[in-house]
Amino acid sequence: MTIEPVTQETFPAFVSLIEALAEYEHLEKPDNAAINRLRRDAFSVLPRFWAWLAIENEEAVGYAIAFETYSSFLAKPTMYLEDVFVLESARGTGAGSALFNTVLELARERECGRMEWAVLDWNQTAIDFYKKKGAEVRKEWLLCRLTP
Amino acid sequence: MTIEPVTQETFPAFVSLIEALAEYEHLEKPDNAAINRLRRDAFSVLPRFWAWLAIENEEAVGYAIAFETYSSFLAKPTMYLEDVFVLESARGTGAGSALFNTVLELARERECGRMEWAVLDWNQTAIDFYKKKGAEVRKEWLLCRLTP
Repeated sequence: MTIEPVTQETFPAFVSLIEALAEYEHLEKPDNAAINRLRRDAFSVLPRFWAWLAIENEEAVGYAIAFETYSSFLAKPTMYLEDVFVLESARGTGAGSALFNTVLELARERECGRMEWAVLDWNQTAIDFYKKKGAEVRKEWLLCRLTP
Repeated sequence: MTIEPVTQETFPAFVSLIEALAEYEHLEKPDNAAINRLRRDAFSVLPRFWAWLAIENEEAVGYAIAFETYSSFLAKPTMYLEDVFVLESARGTGAGSALFNTVLELARERECGRMEWAVLDWNQTAIDFYKKKGAEVRKEWLLCRLTP
């Protein structure tokens, strides 16, 4: 099991994994225009996110995406884990843990005050995994969203 | 009522408002080191956030902080509203609405796919305000947090 940053060469495997996560979360898959934007935003001079693959036997079996947000009260960056996902067939291999730890390590390196992410309330497997990692579920915060 | 970006000159008023929000949310106020980091992160070549003040009769009565995150499924930036706060004495003047609309307008300008933020579940005044703005409260998402 190795964790590697996504490159132009591994970008198609990365997209396949995003599509697999969309299916798992019952969400719509990115269309072609979205995939092109994703490539641009991943490899621009100021990338909009970091992305990694978990590779086992030369196959990409999982991925993670993260970026920095900001806490005004701590006055420190927050490492925000946007996605972490491992293929059903590779569960239990430690891929999820290795991806999570890579992002956590980056958070430490960059002196982030917090690491944060959101989990779907029905995804008990993920909630249990995060709790083992030392996370608190902050149920007092409600996520709000609108389309601009 | 005018909305103005925070400047070096108005930075002390901005910090006073952050302290007032900390008190309102029963959170700890930023210490001196945090205030210095906040100044650096607000005015660096690549600022970590945008910040605005609502000014009425030459007094700063409210503020907002926002930055961009990213949606991997939309492959578009998300405008994230980190804080929006108006002093008790200035509620009902439209300051909150003007601050919110400034961030929403920026989200449109920058072609964000979403605008997002979090609200404390006991803050019904804020929840009602956001619903009037067209927001959905996405209760299926739980916020997770850990200290790196």
